[in-house]
Amino acid sequence: MPQLSEEQEFLAITRNHKARVERRLALVLKLKDPSCVYEPVHYAIGTGGKRVRAIITLLACEAVGGNPNSALEAAVAVELLHNFTLIHDDVMDNAALRRGTPTVYKKWDCNTAILAGDILAAHAFRFVLQTTTPRLRNVLSVFTDAFIRVCEGQGLDKDFESRREVDSKDYALMIKGKTAALISAAGEIGALIGGGTKKEVVAMRKFGEHLGMAFQIQDDLLDILGVPKEFGKKIGGDIVEGKKTYLLVKGLDRAKGADRTLLRRVVPGNGMTPSAIRRIASVYEREGVLVDARREVARYTRCAERDLRPIEPSRAKSTLLRLSRQLVVRTS
Amino acid sequence: MPQLSEEQEFLAITRNHKARVERRLALVLKLKDPSCVYEPVHYAIGTGGKRVRAIITLLACEAVGGNPNSALEAAVAVELLHNFTLIHDDVMDNAALRRGTPTVYKKWDCNTAILAGDILAAHAFRFVLQTTTPRLRNVLSVFTDAFIRVCEGQGLDKDFESRREVDSKDYALMIKGKTAALISAAGEIGALIGGGTKKEVVAMRKFGEHLGMAFQIQDDLLDILGVPKEFGKKIGGDIVEGKKTYLLVKGLDRAKGADRTLLRRVVPGNGMTPSAIRRIASVYEREGVLVDARREVARYTRCAERDLRPIEPSRAKSTLLRLSRQLVVRTS
Repeated sequence: MPQLSEEQEFLAITRNHKARVERRLALVLKLKDPSCVYEPVHYAIGTGGKRVRAIITLLACEAVGGNPNSALEAAVAVELLHNFTLIHDDVMDNAALRRGTPTVYKKWDCNTAILAGDILAAHAFRFVLQTTTPRLRNVLSVFTDAFIRVCEGQGLDKDFESRREVDSKDYALMIKGKTAALISAAGEIGALIGGGTKKEVVAMRKFGEHLGMAFQIQDDLLDILGVPKEFGKKIGGDIVEGKKTYLLVKGLDRAKGADRTLLRRVVPGNGMTPSAIRRIASVYEREGVLVDARREVARYTRCAERDLRPIEPSRAKSTLLRLSRQLVVRTS
Repeated sequence: MPQLSEEQEFLAITRNHKARVERRLALVLKLKDPSCVYEPVHYAIGTGGKRVRAIITLLACEAVGGNPNSALEAAVAVELLHNFTLIHDDVMDNAALRRGTPTVYKKWDCNTAILAGDILAAHAFRFVLQTTTPRLRNVLSVFTDAFIRVCEGQGLDKDFESRREVDSKDYALMIKGKTAALISAAGEIGALIGGGTKKEVVAMRKFGEHLGMAFQIQDDLLDILGVPKEFGKKIGGDIVEGKKTYLLVKGLDRAKGADRTLLRRVVPGNGMTPSAIRRIASVYEREGVLVDARREVARYTRCAERDLRPIEPSRAKSTLLRLSRQLVVRTS
């Protein structure tokens, strides 16, 4: 058998882990009654997604010497909790598209989305509880803290929309909760279940956190630079929703005169037109905000790579590193 | 010291337990940032409530021989999860009042209510996790299942609003989830933490379930018979919201002609006037639905009392029994 190239091996491993996650996620698809709750749940988890958080959980477990199968329930739980946040965030953001299809909120209504999200959070806990590990209390504690921090981050996100002054520090605090907390928990939980040492568990937690920060800034960038068909969300959606993204925060910090006035108009309910979005994108370009964002993504990714130093070299570790690099050059 | 009458002792015990719960709940009031999340949370849990579920948790623990203090975190968790459901339900029901004050949804907005509810559910788990018991996995499992069943029940409740045919069996299934699941979990969790035998744990679970059924039908009755100032919700609110209550389900089963046509108009968004509500109330009266409801409340309460037979007599058990009798003659 010819040896696989590094890239081929990476693809094989991540595909394999993703397939395991999908098979276990399918258990949720067996829940039927009441259909008004579970149909939207099936729709939400069935519209795909990269399952990155679940894959990270499995790889983190493997990278500290554990059997990834032992982290499968927890991995699915992380993925379910992630989907819970997406469904509720889409209501709060009045978002029309997610992964290229209508959001639960748009396809059904607000009430359906609230309830589908709620029950996903509940099922996420049921999955964690199926994990066989002497560290279950610890795992649950990390999971619960992530749940809380994601909500707090989402709270800041909403709060910032109506706040004029939001600086880079505020922004970092917000995405640390909203995005990084769960990716960080994915790493930490995987390492805990895998039997990692204290140092290894901390390494995985930090890796996830830095990767999460990079991931969110990349997401902010894709709102401007993404290819609509690949991105799955509406380009300029953050601008329409009045979100204080990395780009907007930096842009407001730098732009003067008419440019600044234009950026000031990015608040929820202002109904920015496609032409306004294009003008805003060119302000970002002109002010070097896009370059800065790319630099910040690269910086956080380097941090994440450094975090993994205490982890012994292995196939799983290489896969995590490659995954982190891929995530931040992604176009979707 | 003169001996306390049974009634005085009951009041002293429940007041004492309630005070413990309030003190522990106050920890949640210390959470401040972000204020856009925690202010509505403080408001919601600060607007009072009977804390019945938490008190049941403590009493169940005590009645099987445990120290109620060991169940305090779990009791608070049950109360927080209950408040989570209230906040989200009020959005779904478009409810204006709760405990005599504006709902979170009305005082703030839908997004705030979604997020405040979400974070309460998360904090509920954090509280359960603080419980010291060798049965933590079991406790968490009961708690999580209750979370799921409450959501499923709420789903049925929403579903029934637009369904023409809902019979008594459907109704019972719905309130078994929506209301009884959490009260049942309160009893079961208390008994588990208190070190109850399998028989005792089952007894407490069943007691809570039957009490919950009685409690919900009484709540349905109060929608018509409640004293507005005491009830804390709008009288006739269920009719305005188009809910399939015990009264409506039974009423539809019996009424003919114009009465039936009137009851058919009870669907969400139909904007029933106070005069229509009065007419509906007299249909209920005329058709014997109110008498039936009272009988059903009494029947479930008797079941709940019978459920407690395997539990040894104790002060805590007497308090539980008295509490169950009081809950179902309540006017608020």
